[in-house]
Amino acid sequence: MIGNFTYCNPTKIYFGKNALEGLKEELKKYGKNVLLVYGGGSIKKNGIYEKVVAALKESGKQIFEDGGVMPNPSYAKLCEGISRARAAKADLILAVGGGSVCDYAKAVSVSVHCDEDAWEKYYIRFEEPDCEIVPVGCVLTMVGTGSEMNGGSVITNHEQKLKIGHVFGENVFPKFSILDPEFTFTVPKYQMVSGIYDIMSHILEQYFSGTDDNTSDYISEGLLRSLIHSADIAVEDPHNYEARSNLMWTATWALNTLIAKGKTTDWMVHMLGQAVAAHTDATHGMTLAAVTMPYYTFILPYGTAKFARYAVNVWNVDPAGKSEKEVALEGLSRMEAWMRKIGLVMNISELGATREMLDGMVKSTLIMDGGYKVLTEEDIRSILSASF
Amino acid sequence: MIGNFTYCNPTKIYFGKNALEGLKEELKKYGKNVLLVYGGGSIKKNGIYEKVVAALKESGKQIFEDGGVMPNPSYAKLCEGISRARAAKADLILAVGGGSVCDYAKAVSVSVHCDEDAWEKYYIRFEEPDCEIVPVGCVLTMVGTGSEMNGGSVITNHEQKLKIGHVFGENVFPKFSILDPEFTFTVPKYQMVSGIYDIMSHILEQYFSGTDDNTSDYISEGLLRSLIHSADIAVEDPHNYEARSNLMWTATWALNTLIAKGKTTDWMVHMLGQAVAAHTDATHGMTLAAVTMPYYTFILPYGTAKFARYAVNVWNVDPAGKSEKEVALEGLSRMEAWMRKIGLVMNISELGATREMLDGMVKSTLIMDGGYKVLTEEDIRSILSASF
Repeated sequence: MIGNFTYCNPTKIYFGKNALEGLKEELKKYGKNVLLVYGGGSIKKNGIYEKVVAALKESGKQIFEDGGVMPNPSYAKLCEGISRARAAKADLILAVGGGSVCDYAKAVSVSVHCDEDAWEKYYIRFEEPDCEIVPVGCVLTMVGTGSEMNGGSVITNHEQKLKIGHVFGENVFPKFSILDPEFTFTVPKYQMVSGIYDIMSHILEQYFSGTDDNTSDYISEGLLRSLIHSADIAVEDPHNYEARSNLMWTATWALNTLIAKGKTTDWMVHMLGQAVAAHTDATHGMTLAAVTMPYYTFILPYGTAKFARYAVNVWNVDPAGKSEKEVALEGLSRMEAWMRKIGLVMNISELGATREMLDGMVKSTLIMDGGYKVLTEEDIRSILSASF
Repeated sequence: MIGNFTYCNPTKIYFGKNALEGLKEELKKYGKNVLLVYGGGSIKKNGIYEKVVAALKESGKQIFEDGGVMPNPSYAKLCEGISRARAAKADLILAVGGGSVCDYAKAVSVSVHCDEDAWEKYYIRFEEPDCEIVPVGCVLTMVGTGSEMNGGSVITNHEQKLKIGHVFGENVFPKFSILDPEFTFTVPKYQMVSGIYDIMSHILEQYFSGTDDNTSDYISEGLLRSLIHSADIAVEDPHNYEARSNLMWTATWALNTLIAKGKTTDWMVHMLGQAVAAHTDATHGMTLAAVTMPYYTFILPYGTAKFARYAVNVWNVDPAGKSEKEVALEGLSRMEAWMRKIGLVMNISELGATREMLDGMVKSTLIMDGGYKVLTEEDIRSILSASF
């Protein structure tokens, strides 16, 4: 742990079967008006909506609905949510859904009592909230983003073709999150696998950076091994409670600030993936998967030692008699085979990207400076070209 | 993650060089009267006392001193601390020291506004506090117990020859902890190595229990690998900042509730070690080291699969062509060699235990039921006998 840091994560987690019982405990702490935020309505089909509404009514809450949050929540929808929260005089925003719904709820929470334009303030100027923040709680129904225990909030501005995440401080973290693995059983396999890769990418974005020998990297390797093991089981048997619960908890710890402590981080896979999503509206985890191999192959020469460590400690590559580069490449090769096996999309064409979009995607890609190489615009063009 | 659980850890950590700057931020949140709790006075020799007092004065605090907390804080000392805190009308208890000082501060914090006998209420009847709790902050100067980010508080009743820990809920966790790895540089090597084994034992007590395939166990393996790696460096070069900082952060995560989530835990090494300490007043980590091999050798047949996993994933034992038991035993053997190498005490005689104390130590050992075998009194006698 070479770098200085602070750590504080006050989100309370209720985990396991019947974790929704925890919601009633938490509701006691907040006022009467609850803005109930959800997505396309799948929670009305699988019974989760009914259970949540019953808990809210039992707790004497007035429910104001804000459904229809889309997978890449838009700036236009955010403006609508802010209006709804203001009209409701919301004391609590309850997000029931996956990461998009949680991200959106946080974006609303910091904007309700703010007079400035939310997109400009938080997603262009990256300012911190200087107004009252409406508390957020989450009932998680899809695994991957880690939004249930962090300050992350990604919003897409379709007009500007920009998908940008603001990582807010602990004052914006959900006050509580309800994690019942059974609530994720009805997620379609494509979404489940996409979520699995989102988890993996979160860990790797923090792992593939820095040269120090950091406890965070050892924790990351443990999380990766757990993820791979449980993903293999869940892909074969989606109703395996143990595997789904391990995936759910791994997702939370993959992105709740812990494994970034004391080190630099990369995040270029997300920047590339988000550029693809801004132009195609494709599923988040799949955009990450589709650009991963071209990007890691490109940066491997600049961080070979870490890629070799990854190969040995995560993919069980036997390093005996091999060069560091050979070990590193064998690790990536095993990773690629595993990605194909679990059903990830490995190119951006399949996600709707066309060669005509290339210039736009290059332009939409934010360049980060924490990885093994700071990319040039030409590097980005080359990586995205290799992703078709 | 088979078991249901809640997780909440609100302690704010300031980590790194000059982390003491964070103290001034935190002091703003509390009233004027600060009870400054510390141990035998080493902080007056290494300059930490002066720095803390300067920060307190700069923040306009009234300082009330409570020094002389001993390595196994006693019930008698606790009673004295309660009186001092009451006389000071303490708004904040600031613990400057190692785990004993932090443990003691928490015991005082839950007793100041409580009319009942603290030993009886918290350490015999294991009740939860039902009174106002005085907030606690920590400035950590020794690594091992994890007390800086949990609710643990171990107190020794010398009259009753009992050393008992109460694990309080998150309302008793330190509000903040200052972790500057350089503050640990002056700890004598014996104490540093003892702390290292305390960390290892904390992880193993949570790891060697349960048959499920749990994310917590994967995180534990990562922490163990980090610990072993950094310990090897720190033993050779105690002023290696990176190694000492990794040890410090690993210690915090070894016992801040995370790696116990969703699984059962053991804690028999601690129960045996605490019985030895209650009769000898020996250093905590050394008592754990001295009983470990006899205990693990005894329970290995009841949890062979997990001991084999430990051998492969932590000690790099090659399982090819070996039985599960052979793999498991080879892991323990490598662990024992490492323990000797870093300078741990491997028998209780060297810690002052005599055969005459055996009956008493057996009687002082609390029996836990989460490990691979619930011990009988005869089992305990046999394990302690093998520890001489």
